[in-house]
Amino acid sequence: MTRHGEPPSEQPSATTEEQALIPCSGGGGAAMRLIVPLQGIVQGHGGGGLVLGSLLPCVLFYAFQMYLKRSRSPPLNPPADVPEHRGVVRSSSRRRLPVRDAVLSARASLIAKSADSSYAAGDKRFLEDPYHLFDNPDGVMQLGLAENRLSLDLIDDWLAKNYKDTMLDQRQGALSIKGLATYQPFDGSLEFKTAIAGLMGQVMQGSVSFDPSRIVLTSGATPAIEILSFCLADIGNAFLVPSPYHPGYDRNIRWRAGIELIPVPCRSTDNFSISVASLERAYTRAKNRSVKVCGILFSNPSNPVGNLLRTETLLDIIDFATEKNIHVIADETFAGSIHGNEVFVSMAEVLNTDGVDRTRVHIVYSLSKVFCIPGVRVGIVYSFNECVLAATSRLSRFSISAPTHQLLISMLTDVKFIAQYLKMNRERLRIMYALLVSSLMELGVQCVKSIGGFYCWMDMSKLMKSYSEKGEFELWKVMLDLAKIHLTSGTAYHCIEPGWFRLCFTTLSRNDVPLLMERLKRVIHRQ
Amino acid sequence: MTRHGEPPSEQPSATTEEQALIPCSGGGGAAMRLIVPLQGIVQGHGGGGLVLGSLLPCVLFYAFQMYLKRSRSPPLNPPADVPEHRGVVRSSSRRRLPVRDAVLSARASLIAKSADSSYAAGDKRFLEDPYHLFDNPDGVMQLGLAENRLSLDLIDDWLAKNYKDTMLDQRQGALSIKGLATYQPFDGSLEFKTAIAGLMGQVMQGSVSFDPSRIVLTSGATPAIEILSFCLADIGNAFLVPSPYHPGYDRNIRWRAGIELIPVPCRSTDNFSISVASLERAYTRAKNRSVKVCGILFSNPSNPVGNLLRTETLLDIIDFATEKNIHVIADETFAGSIHGNEVFVSMAEVLNTDGVDRTRVHIVYSLSKVFCIPGVRVGIVYSFNECVLAATSRLSRFSISAPTHQLLISMLTDVKFIAQYLKMNRERLRIMYALLVSSLMELGVQCVKSIGGFYCWMDMSKLMKSYSEKGEFELWKVMLDLAKIHLTSGTAYHCIEPGWFRLCFTTLSRNDVPLLMERLKRVIHRQ
Repeated sequence: MTRHGEPPSEQPSATTEEQALIPCSGGGGAAMRLIVPLQGIVQGHGGGGLVLGSLLPCVLFYAFQMYLKRSRSPPLNPPADVPEHRGVVRSSSRRRLPVRDAVLSARASLIAKSADSSYAAGDKRFLEDPYHLFDNPDGVMQLGLAENRLSLDLIDDWLAKNYKDTMLDQRQGALSIKGLATYQPFDGSLEFKTAIAGLMGQVMQGSVSFDPSRIVLTSGATPAIEILSFCLADIGNAFLVPSPYHPGYDRNIRWRAGIELIPVPCRSTDNFSISVASLERAYTRAKNRSVKVCGILFSNPSNPVGNLLRTETLLDIIDFATEKNIHVIADETFAGSIHGNEVFVSMAEVLNTDGVDRTRVHIVYSLSKVFCIPGVRVGIVYSFNECVLAATSRLSRFSISAPTHQLLISMLTDVKFIAQYLKMNRERLRIMYALLVSSLMELGVQCVKSIGGFYCWMDMSKLMKSYSEKGEFELWKVMLDLAKIHLTSGTAYHCIEPGWFRLCFTTLSRNDVPLLMERLKRVIHRQ
Repeated sequence: MTRHGEPPSEQPSATTEEQALIPCSGGGGAAMRLIVPLQGIVQGHGGGGLVLGSLLPCVLFYAFQMYLKRSRSPPLNPPADVPEHRGVVRSSSRRRLPVRDAVLSARASLIAKSADSSYAAGDKRFLEDPYHLFDNPDGVMQLGLAENRLSLDLIDDWLAKNYKDTMLDQRQGALSIKGLATYQPFDGSLEFKTAIAGLMGQVMQGSVSFDPSRIVLTSGATPAIEILSFCLADIGNAFLVPSPYHPGYDRNIRWRAGIELIPVPCRSTDNFSISVASLERAYTRAKNRSVKVCGILFSNPSNPVGNLLRTETLLDIIDFATEKNIHVIADETFAGSIHGNEVFVSMAEVLNTDGVDRTRVHIVYSLSKVFCIPGVRVGIVYSFNECVLAATSRLSRFSISAPTHQLLISMLTDVKFIAQYLKMNRERLRIMYALLVSSLMELGVQCVKSIGGFYCWMDMSKLMKSYSEKGEFELWKVMLDLAKIHLTSGTAYHCIEPGWFRLCFTTLSRNDVPLLMERLKRVIHRQ
């Protein structure tokens, strides 16, 4: 049957019982953890193992069954099918059928029931009453969203000059139907991949070149990370993720791919940089609780901190991953948004070092941040592993619509424009960042030194009533209610230290800064 | 921590051992299946149960451990982490690290390793040597792809007349940057949902109206089906799917969502229509092997058969699902492509019947087929279940790019154009279908009576050397090699009877038909 492309029938499947046990009571997991050590005993050395292996299982297994019987908690998600002994007979009239709720899957229940984030609450307030310098100067300032509005005019100008040559059929001056009318390759066209590879090379300032055949395109960084995770780990496996990390990982990896994320805390005393020693500790702890770690995931430049990983750290991470035989995922979404004086080193560049195992390293990239165009939805998986490329390209459904496709190819291959854009955007980011940091410093608010990204990572712990997560939440609320400032607090990023906030400065103009500082003063000088 | 939108930490997770057992040897599943009946004994009635419960587990469990020890097959996907006793010490030089393959997840391995389909093989041949009436009359005819080229000119004309008013900023006559520059709602804008609801109502010829708030938009029908499945069943659960069914379901549901698809065979003697009796049998068989069935999935109009489900059958299916407390997914992707004389009844219409439980019914829809624009990637989940809407909208990353967004809203709300398009497209489909079926009949090839879709479902069993899957494959190969006809065979659709083929006629023009028949004659009269 596989000749027609259906997956082989021996794909892993769990039984009803496993499904019932695992999400509902956790009993399934416990049972499996019991079986495996026992198996070790049975398979043990000499006759003693055999005796123990026949005795211990009986006692433990029986005790375990009794425990299960007594302590089973009510199921999170009751089984959908009716036990036969209830004697429900199929009725000829549909009105007589019992009314029951059609239940969601356990994995979707978690998603549907999960509380809205404070980000969502802040965003709602912003949408109801959005700040504008002239039209609504008392409105809520949106400083939570990493959207770059500093260089919109550059893109706008390019579009005004070029849309006719790129999107419209020369013959009749209208939009070309050609691309709209056909299915495109699911992982992106070679033409677009080549344009993207060129752009990535330009972003890295020629320090490394990119091979279009190693690119799989997705509809934004979100599916790129989700599909890649799906391919690198199974359900219940884990990734180590230096924290603070972007909460989007929780949505895309934990929710969708069912992979556990183990935060590896970075601290302010280390400028929130990653150490291999803490990766090692987290790995060992996971191993001790029988969780299989399949990879390390990090953002570089870091989101939310904005600092960079140096070459030596990147090599250490690869060494660590090679020793443990796990994967490395480098999220370089903000690589095109460097504004500081340090040089950004891409994982792709480090992989040219002799002796490095490239096949375990995968890079995620996106067009949303480098340009001001999250609306177009282009994400990139870049991998040196042929199997990963094969699997991700089969899973991807890259879906940029045809008119935009043509438009972007033209824009990305306009090398001169791109070079100018990158330079000007970098300069604008630099000026805005410097202005924000110095203004904050005048108020006594310190920021970690950022090199890339659209944000400052601010230490506001001194303004909290109590040094705790609760204190941080109260401060977040005061900023929203009293100062009408919507930003995201460190807890959302799994930051181990309370009192840190990410402030996105790219939605502001320079003229907004004095008012922002006035508002922050209200928070600082509150009773 | 949930205040920031992270999912609760108690999400289902499996241990390393479970992961190692389930995909590799199947031992995990067996162990779980063993535990559960034993538990029944332990929890059994009276003292006998208790005695049995203390004795039987010992014997069976020990026997099972011995069995596992002896019969464990080499793992499909060896564990990624190195056992500690191998004594691998972290080396300071990366060159001395052991070289090992970074492994894929078990679920991705299946995808990466699965053989290319015969469809892919035929498509490759087509792309190398594509037929064209004048430019390449000896080339391969693409009759495997459900792409509608019959009404491209209508869309083209509309675009030529309207693109300026819709996509370009009136002020400067250029593309508007507005939509490109911002993140859009992940499940689609209300404006676009309203336009879609209007279109769906027009497609159903006013027999039912659609509520925009019940729509979740996705990037094509593929993610619509995948996300919906994710929400309705957990890994290892199953859907009943009347066969023949589209192989895309295997990719989107089995591969991505990890849900088993149980084909419920429909036969030529019943005109390949669904019977509740066969659903009942498949359900019982699944139950007997402890597989939890969570839903029924079917396409209406059927892809690949093209027949319709009548109101009474739809109601029977809902009754069946209500009795079993499972979901119903109606894939109505081809609802806008009716060409026969029967009236298409949408599941949405049937749900207006008194006493029907609407909350378990979900409809999938797409713009790719009703218009000739698969390149724009718009899929729709339509559900009456609030929980399903909440979960799917959180999972969706609808990513139509901003310029196309404006364009489509304008097109879909041009009610007069839509009405005219639907009418003309229907007429063109009708003419082409009638021409194909009558031409095939002259060659002695019978087709099932289709009412909707872009295809004929042909019985070519008489042309097979042997009445088997092998005979069908040989015939498929003869058609590709000898007659240069690329179409898809019934096995790809899990058809229980060999010798059926789906021929898509919408990529042809009327002038191509005589040549197609000449080519088929070569197959019929071969030695």
